[in-house]
Amino acid sequence: MNVLATLSLATAIATLSVPALAQFQKPEDAVKYRKGAMTVMGAHFGRIGAMANGRVPFDAKAVADNAALVETMSKLPWPAFAAGTDKGETRALPEIWTEQAQFKESADKFQAEVAKLAAAAKTGNLDSVKTAFGAVGQTCKSCHDNYRKE
Amino acid sequence: MNVLATLSLATAIATLSVPALAQFQKPEDAVKYRKGAMTVMGAHFGRIGAMANGRVPFDAKAVADNAALVETMSKLPWPAFAAGTDKGETRALPEIWTEQAQFKESADKFQAEVAKLAAAAKTGNLDSVKTAFGAVGQTCKSCHDNYRKE
Repeated sequence: MNVLATLSLATAIATLSVPALAQFQKPEDAVKYRKGAMTVMGAHFGRIGAMANGRVPFDAKAVADNAALVETMSKLPWPAFAAGTDKGETRALPEIWTEQAQFKESADKFQAEVAKLAAAAKTGNLDSVKTAFGAVGQTCKSCHDNYRKE
Repeated sequence: MNVLATLSLATAIATLSVPALAQFQKPEDAVKYRKGAMTVMGAHFGRIGAMANGRVPFDAKAVADNAALVETMSKLPWPAFAAGTDKGETRALPEIWTEQAQFKESADKFQAEVAKLAAAAKTGNLDSVKTAFGAVGQTCKSCHDNYRKE
């Protein structure tokens, strides 16, 4: 890679990361924030799962409400994976920062599947919800397998 | 209190608490969830504060986006203060459960002020945002003073 390309890449990475960390006073605030967002998102996703898997009776409105919330939450964690937030109480793997493009692609894929789940939830059709729920679950797992410590 | 009144109160408390905790597998899940929701809510509220206090240039769209998110988040923590979730890694004071009506009133007041902040944010008027931000901040402080350990 020549110097110009390196500089250009460095600028691109800085553009991605600096405004994000600027939203947090300290790196540990970003870590706490993204963990909080994941926890809330996971809880509401889990409530849809309980209905998709038949553990709880299907309630179309509850599914739609939870899916809308998951969709809102699905946009939040990513800017908090800013440069310098790879330390402390986090299970985030270094690959998040060394493979930024792939990590972003995974996050984008997840958000796209969540949007489909929210759309399916609005139809009130349990089969559509089950399919969309499974697809989202795959993107969760894939990203956790690649970017989260055991 | 006679037996009927006692039973009736017990039923009322069970009605309040059981469906809430039923949303969580374990009490510690509820604690983690409500802390996560508070963290995310606080981060976005803080971003409005930075603009209300002039530390960051006023950006009407950013204020509106953050206020909408705070409004969504403002509804989440309360069901997670379910019966049996007063232990573990929590700063929640016992009064949350011994003064349920007052606690609910405080939470309702907070949500009402947050709704006003979201409405003010939509107008794009900085002075309205400042006023509404201050009013929300008062409800945060009051509830934390009464119901959260130092």
